[in-house]
Amino acid sequence: MSINPELDPELDLELQRDVNLPAEALWRGWTEPALLVQWFCPRPWKVVECDIDLTPGGIFRTVMQSPEGDNMPEGIGTYLVVEPGRRLVWTNMMGPGFQLKPEPAELHLGFFFVVDLTFEPLPGGGTRYRAVCRHQTAAAREAHEKMGFHQGWGIALDQLVELMALPA
Amino acid sequence: MSINPELDPELDLELQRDVNLPAEALWRGWTEPALLVQWFCPRPWKVVECDIDLTPGGIFRTVMQSPEGDNMPEGIGTYLVVEPGRRLVWTNMMGPGFQLKPEPAELHLGFFFVVDLTFEPLPGGGTRYRAVCRHQTAAAREAHEKMGFHQGWGIALDQLVELMALPA
Repeated sequence: MSINPELDPELDLELQRDVNLPAEALWRGWTEPALLVQWFCPRPWKVVECDIDLTPGGIFRTVMQSPEGDNMPEGIGTYLVVEPGRRLVWTNMMGPGFQLKPEPAELHLGFFFVVDLTFEPLPGGGTRYRAVCRHQTAAAREAHEKMGFHQGWGIALDQLVELMALPA
Repeated sequence: MSINPELDPELDLELQRDVNLPAEALWRGWTEPALLVQWFCPRPWKVVECDIDLTPGGIFRTVMQSPEGDNMPEGIGTYLVVEPGRRLVWTNMMGPGFQLKPEPAELHLGFFFVVDLTFEPLPGGGTRYRAVCRHQTAAAREAHEKMGFHQGWGIALDQLVELMALPA
């Protein structure tokens, strides 16, 4: 796989944190539906459905539910890079089989993105977790930031770490 | 890799032909810049520059030149699937490192696409060559068809077959 290019500060958002879990645990949380539904959105929101076909061009589908019990429109994406335990790249620009989505205004989030996740082992057994979210335009990046990207992804990561730190 | 979904007749264009060359020859034509420049656009148009980093997220860049000698804006894309000799998927929606492009109206072609190429060996040494080009909207598909997709890709394939059939 190609080296990640530098972060583009006009188009990309980033969350990086060193966590006290092996990369394998974070990877499982991101790739097993029964685990993902337990942490992927900040409580009291929930993920109530999740489908994962963990291969480039395979589906990544989630349905979120509001605290009032209303299901949101399903979020459908596809994987671009699957390097077990190391790197996972996915996007909402395409569905399974790399079928293109219509214009982003028709999606419930209102913009396209690519998420590039890397899991870098650290001495001592921890992991440098890095999530880069790329956008088409500076306006989309700003909208995503104002929606609370850093807080939301940070809380979700807290939930992931809490989940995977439990005795198996 | 996931099985290709069915063709979507509203969004996809397709060129399929059985050719009398091994899959490996067609693959080389698509993936070696020195070969690609010789067939990739119908003559008397030319490809005058080509960069290929043959890995998911790697660059696929071409510059075409009109018969009058004018260079077109460069076309930049990236690879999504690289299965040597079997399947090559690339798109103009993203550049290297999966960095998203701005809205398609700002691109010289005016629309986004994903090209899904498969090379299926046939008994007797030939290959079933299939190129599926996926679009975001029915309007983009129609515009691409009216630009002469079938004729253009057919002529380019003729040129590829002619090139690779020459003694090495």
